[in-house]
Amino acid sequence: MKVVTEYIAVSTRGHTDIKDITPEAGRLLANSGIQNGAVTFFVSGSTAGITTIEYEPGLLQDVPAAFEKLAPERAHYAHDATWGDGNGSSHVRAALLGASLTVPFSGGKMLLGTWQQVVLIDFDTRARQRRVVMQIMGE
Amino acid sequence: MKVVTEYIAVSTRGHTDIKDITPEAGRLLANSGIQNGAVTFFVSGSTAGITTIEYEPGLLQDVPAAFEKLAPERAHYAHDATWGDGNGSSHVRAALLGASLTVPFSGGKMLLGTWQQVVLIDFDTRARQRRVVMQIMGE
Amino acid sequence: MKVVTEYIAVSTRGHTDIKDITPEAGRLLANSGIQNGAVTFFVSGSTAGITTIEYEPGLLQDVPAAFEKLAPERAHYAHDATWGDGNGSSHVRAALLGASLTVPFSGGKMLLGTWQQVVLIDFDTRARQRRVVMQIMGE
Repeated sequence: MKVVTEYIAVSTRGHTDIKDITPEAGRLLANSGIQNGAVTFFVSGSTAGITTIEYEPGLLQDVPAAFEKLAPERAHYAHDATWGDGNGSSHVRAALLGASLTVPFSGGKMLLGTWQQVVLIDFDTRARQRRVVMQIMGE
Repeated sequence: MKVVTEYIAVSTRGHTDIKDITPEAGRLLANSGIQNGAVTFFVSGSTAGITTIEYEPGLLQDVPAAFEKLAPERAHYAHDATWGDGNGSSHVRAALLGASLTVPFSGGKMLLGTWQQVVLIDFDTRARQRRVVMQIMGE
Repeated sequence: MKVVTEYIAVSTRGHTDIKDITPEAGRLLANSGIQNGAVTFFVSGSTAGITTIEYEPGLLQDVPAAFEKLAPERAHYAHDATWGDGNGSSHVRAALLGASLTVPFSGGKMLLGTWQQVVLIDFDTRARQRRVVMQIMGE
């Protein structure tokens, strides 16, 4: 049984920008040589989250629209009174989505559906450089 | 330390149908002979998710009602323009809920609460045959 | 490779009370002596959840407000007809947030952001004593 920790660097535009990290994750998993186990994706920081979607242009509009309804960018947030950084909505959205996702793999491949990609969603209100932790555990 | 990958087949009616997979998961865990570790449940596909609920008839109405409010089935989705398959709401709901859940176990039993079941929620707009990956890791 | 199962006891006031369990989790991780791997946090029970937030006073108002909008405490829930315990909103909120979070660690430290804490959110409608499972797996 082995543990391999990798990092995936992602540049985002913020504002619920959605980035597909599946190809890079697949390469890092193959490089690890581990055949069976689970990959945990985790985003360090409290204004972004990880999930899976079908990565196609329509959903890149629909998913941000759903988050805008859930926690509008321009609403009042007590967080903004604390820090004055104006990204209360980003924190609320990230807390709801969650910072981690665990994907099982077998034969060196993640057991994703054909139309299912692992994505980072950056809820911050400005462009960011993100680093997603990808931890591979297995044998 | 061992890794065992199992699959749970589930027939759903779609439309936020909620299926209790706890009994089958408990059997597969017992069969694995692994005593301590964590089980990852993962649904392959981008229109379903995994969570835990108290599996009782009232919540089987309340949870779908909450998702209907969050992302109504009959609203407009850009996804539907891409594919014409009319299940934009299913994708949005699944992205928000998440495709994975990890449950620790000890002494061969998942550390669930008494009134807490592991469920698949199928958000698609038609009946589906689903396969939930259940990956057991431990010793 | 080792598996260590710990428990973190938390007293809450319910009503979407948010408790920071990061300091205790850090101590338990250090005590385990395990250097690299992943920690799974899991709350037993179907009216609470786990996520990460920046633990500051503003968000302790904003996050409950978002859940109140999503599933209001005083709305009608079919769950309440089943049990008469009046916490339908708690169950719906918990199902949406999720009961598990997995955080990778390296060099004996969780790979959290500087302003990112692991929190238990208790959605029940009364004070509760909670026990969060913390399972450490690694080498």
